[in-house]
Amino acid sequence: MPFGYVGRILRVNLSDEHIVTETPEDTFYRRYIGGEGFVAYYLLKELKPRVDPLGPENKLIFAAGPVTGAPIPGGGRNSVGAKSPLTGGFGEAEVGGHWGAELKKAGFDAVIVEGRAESPVYLALRDGEAEIRDAEHLWGLDTGESQKMIREELGDDLIRVAQIGLGGENLVRYACVIVDLKDAAGRTGMGAVMGSKNLKAIAVRGHGRVEVADPDKLRSLSKWFVQNFKNLARSLHEYGTGAGMEGGAASGNLPTRNFRDGLFEGARLIQAEAIKETVRVGMEGCYACPIRCKKVVKINEGRWNVDPIYGGPEYEALAALGSDCGVDDLKAICKANELCNRYSIDVISAGASIAFAMECYENGILTRRETGGLDLRFGNAEAVVQMVEMIAKRRGLGDILAEGVKRAAEKIGKGAEKYAVHVKGQEVPMHDPRLKRALGLGYAVSPTGADHMHNLHDMGIAGRGSQLRDLASLGILEPIPLEDLGPRKVRALIYFVNWRVLDNCLLICDFVPWDYVKKTEIVRAVTGWNTTAYELTKVGERVTTMARAFNIREGFRKDDDWLPERFFHPQTSGPLSETSVDPERLREARRFYYQMMGWDENGVPTRAKLEELDIGWVADLLEK
Amino acid sequence: MPFGYVGRILRVNLSDEHIVTETPEDTFYRRYIGGEGFVAYYLLKELKPRVDPLGPENKLIFAAGPVTGAPIPGGGRNSVGAKSPLTGGFGEAEVGGHWGAELKKAGFDAVIVEGRAESPVYLALRDGEAEIRDAEHLWGLDTGESQKMIREELGDDLIRVAQIGLGGENLVRYACVIVDLKDAAGRTGMGAVMGSKNLKAIAVRGHGRVEVADPDKLRSLSKWFVQNFKNLARSLHEYGTGAGMEGGAASGNLPTRNFRDGLFEGARLIQAEAIKETVRVGMEGCYACPIRCKKVVKINEGRWNVDPIYGGPEYEALAALGSDCGVDDLKAICKANELCNRYSIDVISAGASIAFAMECYENGILTRRETGGLDLRFGNAEAVVQMVEMIAKRRGLGDILAEGVKRAAEKIGKGAEKYAVHVKGQEVPMHDPRLKRALGLGYAVSPTGADHMHNLHDMGIAGRGSQLRDLASLGILEPIPLEDLGPRKVRALIYFVNWRVLDNCLLICDFVPWDYVKKTEIVRAVTGWNTTAYELTKVGERVTTMARAFNIREGFRKDDDWLPERFFHPQTSGPLSETSVDPERLREARRFYYQMMGWDENGVPTRAKLEELDIGWVADLLEK
Repeated sequence: MPFGYVGRILRVNLSDEHIVTETPEDTFYRRYIGGEGFVAYYLLKELKPRVDPLGPENKLIFAAGPVTGAPIPGGGRNSVGAKSPLTGGFGEAEVGGHWGAELKKAGFDAVIVEGRAESPVYLALRDGEAEIRDAEHLWGLDTGESQKMIREELGDDLIRVAQIGLGGENLVRYACVIVDLKDAAGRTGMGAVMGSKNLKAIAVRGHGRVEVADPDKLRSLSKWFVQNFKNLARSLHEYGTGAGMEGGAASGNLPTRNFRDGLFEGARLIQAEAIKETVRVGMEGCYACPIRCKKVVKINEGRWNVDPIYGGPEYEALAALGSDCGVDDLKAICKANELCNRYSIDVISAGASIAFAMECYENGILTRRETGGLDLRFGNAEAVVQMVEMIAKRRGLGDILAEGVKRAAEKIGKGAEKYAVHVKGQEVPMHDPRLKRALGLGYAVSPTGADHMHNLHDMGIAGRGSQLRDLASLGILEPIPLEDLGPRKVRALIYFVNWRVLDNCLLICDFVPWDYVKKTEIVRAVTGWNTTAYELTKVGERVTTMARAFNIREGFRKDDDWLPERFFHPQTSGPLSETSVDPERLREARRFYYQMMGWDENGVPTRAKLEELDIGWVADLLEK
Repeated sequence: MPFGYVGRILRVNLSDEHIVTETPEDTFYRRYIGGEGFVAYYLLKELKPRVDPLGPENKLIFAAGPVTGAPIPGGGRNSVGAKSPLTGGFGEAEVGGHWGAELKKAGFDAVIVEGRAESPVYLALRDGEAEIRDAEHLWGLDTGESQKMIREELGDDLIRVAQIGLGGENLVRYACVIVDLKDAAGRTGMGAVMGSKNLKAIAVRGHGRVEVADPDKLRSLSKWFVQNFKNLARSLHEYGTGAGMEGGAASGNLPTRNFRDGLFEGARLIQAEAIKETVRVGMEGCYACPIRCKKVVKINEGRWNVDPIYGGPEYEALAALGSDCGVDDLKAICKANELCNRYSIDVISAGASIAFAMECYENGILTRRETGGLDLRFGNAEAVVQMVEMIAKRRGLGDILAEGVKRAAEKIGKGAEKYAVHVKGQEVPMHDPRLKRALGLGYAVSPTGADHMHNLHDMGIAGRGSQLRDLASLGILEPIPLEDLGPRKVRALIYFVNWRVLDNCLLICDFVPWDYVKKTEIVRAVTGWNTTAYELTKVGERVTTMARAFNIREGFRKDDDWLPERFFHPQTSGPLSETSVDPERLREARRFYYQMMGWDENGVPTRAKLEELDIGWVADLLEK
């Protein structure tokens, strides 16, 4: 046998309750790897063009990767994908925790959910067996209650649950999938797809072991990591994400009041250092990872009770529900974050939608009549918490904001559009392209809309830091200034994103500081493939291009690869008050991006490029 | 210091005898590596467009690579490059032996020879010192005599000599550079460039040591190799090249009578097995290599005395001077090969030129009047030996054939052109594109004209053999049938050739069965760069593209990327008598090749591709 990897893919049709297991050949695994690669493959191959993302024809894919569940730090993730109800295009998000590893131990690499259950159900996957179970009694429950009941009725306290709360049930377009109550496959509305299928949860338990081709090699890599992680990931280990937000604010990179203003004066109050000193009660980690970067917060003082089972806010939540709404009340942010996990809605899109509404309110486009009496000005912490509730429950203005800022702006009218900060309908995450120019291009061209999870954060290569040192392994040999958006920067974006996407296929955590050489060694050790970083980089490029092809088929065009108006204007104050993204330079960078990707001048992958990526069948699809 | 590699490049101007040493920064080494990479860099950067390849403005570059001279099997090579007097385009050839390692031990990575000496000179490079010495007394000598005298006058029997004989002195357009008397940097006429500069030889001796960043790792790789090479390279070890030519003939892959006929009936008589049984007196090897694949033959019987100091014929010589001329007299072939090494002319182009003349003769285009009375029919062994003499000495018809088949056909006229089997003016080596379709495309698009040294020999990937197993490391996961010339095959050609070109930069021997994973480990261990197979593959692509850019600037166009008419017709007999290259399929494959390389429809690299390869300066050059 030339290649070492074999696995099983579970296919569950909720309409007719048909369940099958498929065992693709190992070249399939080698070509598409797992995670985002599987999502791209199945969506392209099996979805009819232009299906309703919230209809039974959409498919929802939960996929682990070859590394998931292997005893190696960073290998605890899984991916969730479907056609996105938020963007109408390629939808995919990843999540850490233990669920992915559990899925692998239960004998599955991926679960493809098809159709739509007549009434609420959940899936129970245990040691190779799959069962569709009634979930009528779980529907409407918070994720915490729901997980508790599922564990009780399956009689297993260690069962891992990926699920939705009210947000997913109510088809909030940016509802997420919540895992272990505190981790979210956050972006592109995968929780809404889950809700549309009447699928409350997938509960998983396995007692198997993930096969590793070269356990000695893997052990030595793990050992190296355990000896070095405190140096390599000290801040993450100590604070988790969101440390040093004061510094981010000082550079203009902390989104403030719907990306309108500059320096956020309250950054110090909401950063991870403050959390550690005040509300933090512990740190938790993902499967096999010693970094343990996940904050657990607990608040027990009446106004903002926060239940620690829901973890704590990451950087994106702190900024989206905090500074971007002008809020510096840490406890309110923790509460809003807890509600997002309780109801399964994405913290970024939720916060950004509220920020959008706040700016509309301050400009008289929304009034107390529309807000239901809420004084929706920037900085009103109480209003943010209430709006999260209203969004999840689709009450009042919440019902409109649950559609995301693009649709909300269309509904509201009166020029609200100018405050809708999104790309392809997905709200922009908490990193500013006026500082990070490559990231802006990355937002514009990402198949999922604005997304920080496969994007280059320019700062990492502006100096001779560790990120440049790592990227030198791919041939990025010299620093590139922050303000540069020329071809050198475009090249760096492409090289970097190829690996980010690969990480989303392998499901290796980006926070875990494996360099490209070691990542390649990990894949070799786990799979037994005599693979190289060349083959692996090409997987990243392949999957990026497949996601692109999916969007092309769904009708996306060049004009959709663009930034919202806001970023073409400076911030109102602070260090970025005299600089903004130049549309001409962005257009030129996009042109280089297309060409370097082997796409035509309209951003459509050429047949030659698709053949070069060993996916000629995608060209056949596009030509149909 | 981020990168570990430092070195020295010697620049010698023979016109004004100016000698300098340059020490480029390590990113230069990392980007262009060495060998063919340096050749491409210096030719593009420093040559004015359209200079006379035999004039003083041409530059002749001898370049080792980072691996050269390190204690690792396969690391004994060096490259020689210049604008080619044969093709008028990018000229480059590699050679094994010990000279490259000696150059490194003498403290140099490369020597750039500029200008032209007024009278014959040679260079002596000893332990960091360079000296231009008179060579009046050496001019006209056979390489054997010349080496002897150089060693005597420098008082060092271990000095290594790269040099020319009569062929180079007489500016035979395919004169080669001979190293250690028996190894040739054979193609594209580098010996003629040397002759044009009045440079007889470069003699090198060094007592230094090549620095290795991770000696333990390199030792363990070497150890693995020594333990395994007899299995991995058994035939090479036992016979050298040219074993099993009977089998090659049976598949139609042994060029016979100027690529006209099929199965060569005398293959058994001239293959390496026959050599071992008859005229072979030993085997020799290159620096640090235990395979020892180089035959030494000795014949001492009057008619064809062959001096063993000149080694023995490789496969290319056996076919070019043998079957392609219809000759099955092994001893005559050995003599002709010896003369080629004695006079420094390329065995392939020499044999192919004679075969061309033979076909002209048999078709009445050449007569005894032009041949000086020689009965130049196919199979006349005596005539082949005599013609080699006449070519080197530019006597009679030899003077015309010394120009290569393209120019010879033009001079001869009368339709001789149809028998001129060349690409871009370089004679086709001994592998038939009617069997190996990707190789045919490789011939057509190679920057050096027909060349087997950076080309895919399709057979290796038609089944599940070791070559496919290796290429799987780059993502070529399934066998591709021999007759396929579709995009899959084009992709395989590109991926494979990227590494062949990289080998020509690193100067790792292709015969030494390092797979891509181990080659990457070797580079890491020697240089200390934390490099990956991705960065390295991109070097191969970069250098291929630079060579392309050089040719574009010299005026080469799409039509030059084409095969000679012969291959569009079947062989006259044997297994390939009913198949040939389909021009339409070749045209389509060329189109895919251009597109996959990121070149425009005319084969010109786009700025975006050049920027993506981190050589935007080449785009500036092309736009001038």
